Amino acid sequence: MFKAKVLIKRRLSILDPQGQAVEKGAIHLGLNNIKETRIGKYIEFLVELDDETKASTEVDEYCRKLLANPIIEDYEFHLEKIS
Amino acid sequence: MFKAKVLIKRRLSILDPQGQAVEKGAIHLGLNNIKETRIGKYIEFLVELDDETKASTEVDEYCRKLLANPIIEDYEFHLEKIS
Repeated sequence: MFKAKVLIKRRLSILDPQGQAVEKGAIHLGLNNIKETRIGKYIEFLVELDDETKASTEVDEYCRKLLANPIIEDYEFHLEKIS
Repeated sequence: MFKAKVLIKRRLSILDPQGQAVEKGAIHLGLNNIKETRIGKYIEFLVELDDETKASTEVDEYCRKLLANPIIEDYEFHLEKIS
């Protein structure tokens, strides 16, 4: 079994209005040194397979088809073997 | 200047309906080995301060007051020095 950890980020060429909105809130709190906030996703799950190649293929398909929007986002993941 | 990278996760005791919904989609795709999907946030931004202690204090306040919901989420961050 593996634990998968996935990071999903918007491409740099794609605006991030949610990040901009949160950053405006920071200025109201007096946090004036925060710039270029970009909000992505962090996803964890278990993969009940023992073969790392098969696990990696399944995780990649999960990312590509469900977790990320491949038009505007990039993803990366790594697997940790667990007992 | 620092680049901050923040991970925000729901506490394990808090249900994650969004993760459960995405996982149902995985089963429809034939990805039957994915379990316990939990969806959090990954946030990047710049901190225009040169003092790491001050930067860390500002990032912690940003996380606590705006990025995370401290009632149901935990956060962790690290800072990378950039020129």
